[in-house]
Amino acid sequence: MNSKRKIAVVVTARPSYSRVKTLLQAIQKHPALELQLIVAASALLDRYGSAVNYIENDGFHISAKVFNVLEGENLTAAAKTTGIGILELSTVFDNLKPDIVVTVADRFETMATAIAASYMNIPLAHLQGGEVTGNIDEKVRHAITKLADYHFVASESAKTRVIKLGENPELVFNTGCPSIDLALLVKDTKLDFDPYQKYGGVGAQPDLSQGYLVVMQHPVTTEYQDSRRHIEQTLKAIAELDVPTLWFWPNVDAGADGTSTGIRAFREHHKIEQIHFFKNMEGIDFLTLLNNAKVLIGNSSVGIRECAYLGVPVVNIGSRQNKRDRGHNVVDVDYNQDAIKQAVSSQVNEGKFPISNVYGGGNAGEQIADLLQKVPLQFHKTITY
Amino acid sequence: MNSKRKIAVVVTARPSYSRVKTLLQAIQKHPALELQLIVAASALLDRYGSAVNYIENDGFHISAKVFNVLEGENLTAAAKTTGIGILELSTVFDNLKPDIVVTVADRFETMATAIAASYMNIPLAHLQGGEVTGNIDEKVRHAITKLADYHFVASESAKTRVIKLGENPELVFNTGCPSIDLALLVKDTKLDFDPYQKYGGVGAQPDLSQGYLVVMQHPVTTEYQDSRRHIEQTLKAIAELDVPTLWFWPNVDAGADGTSTGIRAFREHHKIEQIHFFKNMEGIDFLTLLNNAKVLIGNSSVGIRECAYLGVPVVNIGSRQNKRDRGHNVVDVDYNQDAIKQAVSSQVNEGKFPISNVYGGGNAGEQIADLLQKVPLQFHKTITY
Amino acid sequence: MNSKRKIAVVVTARPSYSRVKTLLQAIQKHPALELQLIVAASALLDRYGSAVNYIENDGFHISAKVFNVLEGENLTAAAKTTGIGILELSTVFDNLKPDIVVTVADRFETMATAIAASYMNIPLAHLQGGEVTGNIDEKVRHAITKLADYHFVASESAKTRVIKLGENPELVFNTGCPSIDLALLVKDTKLDFDPYQKYGGVGAQPDLSQGYLVVMQHPVTTEYQDSRRHIEQTLKAIAELDVPTLWFWPNVDAGADGTSTGIRAFREHHKIEQIHFFKNMEGIDFLTLLNNAKVLIGNSSVGIRECAYLGVPVVNIGSRQNKRDRGHNVVDVDYNQDAIKQAVSSQVNEGKFPISNVYGGGNAGEQIADLLQKVPLQFHKTITY
Amino acid sequence: MNSKRKIAVVVTARPSYSRVKTLLQAIQKHPALELQLIVAASALLDRYGSAVNYIENDGFHISAKVFNVLEGENLTAAAKTTGIGILELSTVFDNLKPDIVVTVADRFETMATAIAASYMNIPLAHLQGGEVTGNIDEKVRHAITKLADYHFVASESAKTRVIKLGENPELVFNTGCPSIDLALLVKDTKLDFDPYQKYGGVGAQPDLSQGYLVVMQHPVTTEYQDSRRHIEQTLKAIAELDVPTLWFWPNVDAGADGTSTGIRAFREHHKIEQIHFFKNMEGIDFLTLLNNAKVLIGNSSVGIRECAYLGVPVVNIGSRQNKRDRGHNVVDVDYNQDAIKQAVSSQVNEGKFPISNVYGGGNAGEQIADLLQKVPLQFHKTITY
Repeated sequence: MNSKRKIAVVVTARPSYSRVKTLLQAIQKHPALELQLIVAASALLDRYGSAVNYIENDGFHISAKVFNVLEGENLTAAAKTTGIGILELSTVFDNLKPDIVVTVADRFETMATAIAASYMNIPLAHLQGGEVTGNIDEKVRHAITKLADYHFVASESAKTRVIKLGENPELVFNTGCPSIDLALLVKDTKLDFDPYQKYGGVGAQPDLSQGYLVVMQHPVTTEYQDSRRHIEQTLKAIAELDVPTLWFWPNVDAGADGTSTGIRAFREHHKIEQIHFFKNMEGIDFLTLLNNAKVLIGNSSVGIRECAYLGVPVVNIGSRQNKRDRGHNVVDVDYNQDAIKQAVSSQVNEGKFPISNVYGGGNAGEQIADLLQKVPLQFHKTITY
Repeated sequence: MNSKRKIAVVVTARPSYSRVKTLLQAIQKHPALELQLIVAASALLDRYGSAVNYIENDGFHISAKVFNVLEGENLTAAAKTTGIGILELSTVFDNLKPDIVVTVADRFETMATAIAASYMNIPLAHLQGGEVTGNIDEKVRHAITKLADYHFVASESAKTRVIKLGENPELVFNTGCPSIDLALLVKDTKLDFDPYQKYGGVGAQPDLSQGYLVVMQHPVTTEYQDSRRHIEQTLKAIAELDVPTLWFWPNVDAGADGTSTGIRAFREHHKIEQIHFFKNMEGIDFLTLLNNAKVLIGNSSVGIRECAYLGVPVVNIGSRQNKRDRGHNVVDVDYNQDAIKQAVSSQVNEGKFPISNVYGGGNAGEQIADLLQKVPLQFHKTITY
Repeated sequence: MNSKRKIAVVVTARPSYSRVKTLLQAIQKHPALELQLIVAASALLDRYGSAVNYIENDGFHISAKVFNVLEGENLTAAAKTTGIGILELSTVFDNLKPDIVVTVADRFETMATAIAASYMNIPLAHLQGGEVTGNIDEKVRHAITKLADYHFVASESAKTRVIKLGENPELVFNTGCPSIDLALLVKDTKLDFDPYQKYGGVGAQPDLSQGYLVVMQHPVTTEYQDSRRHIEQTLKAIAELDVPTLWFWPNVDAGADGTSTGIRAFREHHKIEQIHFFKNMEGIDFLTLLNNAKVLIGNSSVGIRECAYLGVPVVNIGSRQNKRDRGHNVVDVDYNQDAIKQAVSSQVNEGKFPISNVYGGGNAGEQIADLLQKVPLQFHKTITY
Repeated sequence: MNSKRKIAVVVTARPSYSRVKTLLQAIQKHPALELQLIVAASALLDRYGSAVNYIENDGFHISAKVFNVLEGENLTAAAKTTGIGILELSTVFDNLKPDIVVTVADRFETMATAIAASYMNIPLAHLQGGEVTGNIDEKVRHAITKLADYHFVASESAKTRVIKLGENPELVFNTGCPSIDLALLVKDTKLDFDPYQKYGGVGAQPDLSQGYLVVMQHPVTTEYQDSRRHIEQTLKAIAELDVPTLWFWPNVDAGADGTSTGIRAFREHHKIEQIHFFKNMEGIDFLTLLNNAKVLIGNSSVGIRECAYLGVPVVNIGSRQNKRDRGHNVVDVDYNQDAIKQAVSSQVNEGKFPISNVYGGGNAGEQIADLLQKVPLQFHKTITY
């Protein structure tokens, strides 16, 4: 008799995968759990780094793949992608019959997972609820909290906020973020591979031995029209600094085109001697690269989370990470060429910061797996007030 | 130049229509607003009373019709109906380009409206948020609150709850429920039409001159398997009471089949001398019928809202209206033949109750229309804590 | 090593199931084939006889279920049902990776199977191509022929027609219809069960010992508005004949509502002493019932096929079976009460006809299975002229 | 009273637009016709040249836009794109209520138009049926012929073939191809604009005054895996020829990625001194460019059609245009670097050919518009044999 709890985890994007990799491992190892891994949306697409390849290389068995990204690089397409996701995931859940569905964070398409599971009376677990930022994710994240039955949050302030939202405190757990579990692995690792050789990419190949910057800037969904202007400020600032820089292509989002087009146009019209562009990189390699970077620039949540634990200085640009808890390693600036340039110089001088546990201590995956085995199976809930 | 605000209202079911009829009229009359009426889901279907016919008879112009109900009478179908709804409504919104989208209450398919609008950066207004019940609607309703930008709630306790959910108090308005606006119209009206002649239906045609009961019992979505057992308790209780009864067919929901099948089977196997079955009835006629009923039995929210204002005694069965504010006119019972029978007898003896304003005083439609013209157009929000 | 060819068969409706039952059995028994059975559309729905229950009772393992019927009983809903079917079946085929996909006949939703398979470069086999009728099926059937790679047709004239359509004659096989395989099983069987007791249903329970009529009349899709008028002519004719009659509810199609409503209304307003209504019946029982019937009335293709082999007299009404090959057992009439009545009387007097092999001799399932194992796996074709 | 016939034309890709531009103009000018222009699929997407911009610049009013391209660059995504297209177009047709729907050619997604229209009983007109090629289009094109009610074909052999397919000869019209109408306009025009300045693009800017080659090579859908190898043969051949060359990016299709990636990789790793790459070009400018080119190389149907009329020498690579009627201007070669190189040199020496009317004489748009006004409105048809 198979009495294992079946845990379906839906991964929809490259960054979400690093957020749950140690959880997936912990579920797989757990004697009383069975992993049902579903890979969907941009995690399947070449344009956005084919997270699916890393997942398969890491040895995970994929139970179902769901293609649901509608082209259009506009907000209508984002809505439709969610609609198609619900249609498809309903069938997948109907076939796999999971005991619990796990959805991660707050990308627009995670709503599809949350709706399919909760409408089908499957208990829903949500990772990384309760955080605060300044864009559309804000609506999606808290709406998912109201659909979810269990909450695995990444910080104390997030826990407080989820409880204030009327959730049962007994089902809100501050486990820290599983992404910190990975950061712990590279804490003391030097750059031990040649990124140009291993990951290709395009552009110059500056010498990294005296240190380098890393850039990762995503479009901000509700400021669609401005994406191109934003990226250009960063491009100009970095070009002027003229130091070795490794730049990561943005992942999908409405507005992606503004950002991508901005980068492509800049490359066509400028000689850029010190910047190399990567499409993507295996998670541990990326963290190792970060761990040895002088500064991370952009608006990735990696700067807020993993870099807090690693002590890497960060220049965080614009509103995307607004109001998220952060360690001392972060300096915030606006979309402004000069401000970015100055902040980077200043952070280079600061050097590494001490460890911060604000997003957990490195065992989130195991904690969450244990809890998934223990929580009561229920999908019926009432607001607490 | 057309500087009117375009207000898209999405009606997805027969009961939702009565909830917004006076709002639709108020928008239409308002010199600075333009109504874009979208009719979708079960509101278009014959099986569920074709609300669309009443809407057209009431003289409203329909801007778009959206067929999105997937057959299957199961929870997977409910999820998919929502997915298809998002796909279709995105296109509709993309064509109509409304300034504000209005979604009503908490039926599962209203989530499609909320997601399409919020993902497309269209300000979203929600009617009847902040209430508490004991089934899946609980998840949907509060999730929509977290997606909505403006909240038009129906009672003081609902207002308090929406604010506790972290919404900006300046955009939460207790306008009362527009359904009470209609109740006000029939407050003093006697039964002035022959329901058998005007609405057909099937079954016996008992004499209504000495009073009658009205029954309206919907399946409860998260108790799918039990729908048939529930309806049979009510059927037996009413059959034993053997008094003139007008019974309304349930509207769509996962589990509808249990309820409908139960009624059909009961009719095949029992002689029922005093019960007439209706599929549906025009709103004002239905309220007039209710206003003159001895007791309303079942789990319709009409018992909680309109009947509070009208003072009609109600026997409310089961968990569907749990924790909703109610006036003194309601007696709650479990799914139990004897309990139902006793409660009905006792309520018959009570007779009419005085007016209660717990769900508003009859001008909600106009209040909401005025506010829709005045609220700032915005789709960007942050939780208040 | 598993070198069996994987054969995916998609069953979308009750009548299609009887068309392929012996093929499914033959695939299952074949040592070099593996059956992947997919049940979709109305075959899953209670309203249309839940073919899925019979399939499971017959011991078949179902690889995937696909809910894709959109409500609306109109032509827009039929189109959308097909669109949803393609979306879902693509995912199913992507997971099951069949070597050949088999689609049956010409119901509107079979197009979804044909498109998903041919667009995904999966060799497509079509059963019952090349026939001629007078309604929309005509477009669908021949379009599927042009998408299909192998053709298993049911008569010589069908074979000629498929070849004329430019298909490679080496891949067009006249195997006869698998439905005749089932007819062969009941050829000498008397009515050996009590249909009222075994299948329930509603209405009178006339004595069957002196013979009975069977009626099965479906709406005709391109004559949507007329469905109700058509069925009423038949209802009146049969009511006047006043002999024991077993009437089968129609299966889904745009216009179903006209037919169903017509039957329901007639039942409400007339005393019908000699007619019993069934929702559905297990295939072999149904054939046994037919084999012992005096006449089959309506427009079911069962009258054209199985009844040719069984020699049962048929009164075929209207255009639905126009131009299909038929044996001597069929009399055609228009939608006309008097014509129907006269033709039935005349056919009752005729009595049973001799066997006709026009649709095959009873071993179609095995022939097709053998061929599915032998045909070259290819999805690339060119018109022959 | 508006008694104009409403003609809905669905344009789904850049090349389809040039195929129907003069028809759109002729419908617009016709006093008894009303144009309903629907733009869908890749015609809306930046990646594939945003045909929608040219359409709007040409002054056409767009009645509806339909985003339905699902990402994935694989065959499953192509199938799903069709499914979503049906879902969306059904709603569009339901709102616009056209009298006739026009679908163009044989791209995989045109099937969505054909199915939505024919399932909704809207008479369907098909342009460019009856042609023969050697890939998947072969299935799609003839299947659409079997769904269509009127056929406007581009050559005599196409007309013969459509009639052989069992279509009513009275509704099959050889009007020639509307794309020739545009070719007629540029027949005597010299290159009168600077393509680099007007259309940007990337790469070298070779001097065009002594003549130039044009390349346009699309992936071939059923040879998905080989797309990259194919394009590389052409890239190498052209690079070795080392003459001024204008290269056009391929439009979307399953396998597009192989082709695009091939080009990008080649550009990264080779110095290419004489090739300029364009994403797209306004139709008339493109034809003018072609009219003055020494040779067109690739597999575009422009080489077969417009170039026949213009007399431009063509080197046609691979199977994509197999068996299509052609003039004397075409030399066919395999995917082979040396063969391509030799054929180009030989065609350069040939110089311009005389006009061929094989695809019509330049008034197809007006002929078709006239016929759309005259054909009987019907959606019911029977095969002729």
